Amino acid sequence: MTTDTAALTRTPAAPAEIEAALAAIRFNADGLVAAIAQQHDSGEVLMMAWMNREAVAETLTTGRVCYFSRSRNKLWRKGETSGQQQHLVDLRIDCDGDTLLVLVDQLGVACHTGRRNCFFHALRDGALASIAEPEVSQEDLYGR
Amino acid sequence: MTTDTAALTRTPAAPAEIEAALAAIRFNADGLVAAIAQQHDSGEVLMMAWMNREAVAETLTTGRVCYFSRSRNKLWRKGETSGQQQHLVDLRIDCDGDTLLVLVDQLGVACHTGRRNCFFHALRDGALASIAEPEVSQEDLYGR
Repeated sequence: MTTDTAALTRTPAAPAEIEAALAAIRFNADGLVAAIAQQHDSGEVLMMAWMNREAVAETLTTGRVCYFSRSRNKLWRKGETSGQQQHLVDLRIDCDGDTLLVLVDQLGVACHTGRRNCFFHALRDGALASIAEPEVSQEDLYGR
Repeated sequence: MTTDTAALTRTPAAPAEIEAALAAIRFNADGLVAAIAQQHDSGEVLMMAWMNREAVAETLTTGRVCYFSRSRNKLWRKGETSGQQQHLVDLRIDCDGDTLLVLVDQLGVACHTGRRNCFFHALRDGALASIAEPEVSQEDLYGR
């Protein structure tokens, strides 16, 4: 995995940079854009979630990744409850502007199940199987 | 990048395996699921597109990745026109079933611009910049 370490996004981004990023993103009819989070050094794909304009701007301003929760209908500051924050390393926008690749440094685990990443279901031996185990308990993540 | 090479998806998948995968996927109101394509060995995130039930089933059956094109409203057999096919290595389903991580072996380039991957816009020196150049011309890709 080669990483363009010489030119990582500086944070806080300047207002003009944030405007340039927002202008290049094609938000969907709900005002959202898909955001893939990838661990910047290992290349592990951690999760996929959604951002609105405010979440993109906050992520670039604070350097901590913020999504928009469709189920809770509000900003979702990743790790705010669990402590498993994502620190922004770089934000990439795809060719047609409707998907983001967010290179991050993930503290702890990305998945709410306590697994490092969310993509742990796969076909094995003719059936759907879990191919990763939780590294952190629900109690440790959410105090319940 | 560690890859679970011992247990890659066999293709063609059996009908029962395809049914198990389809049952675990939560297709959205449009009958689609987001699919992230990642080069299986390097970890490079290549692109994000969408699949419907038929595209998932065809991908697992043929071992060649098939999406659903929202703009053309039909199955999109990746590389059918350009020759830049994606061969399926493994299909992962995320914790809540609404995103797929498709590990592939990409022939040539994934992006319609001729770049290896679609995520080539980033903030550099205060402005949005292209951080990768096309490796293949439009003429070589599409004969135009």
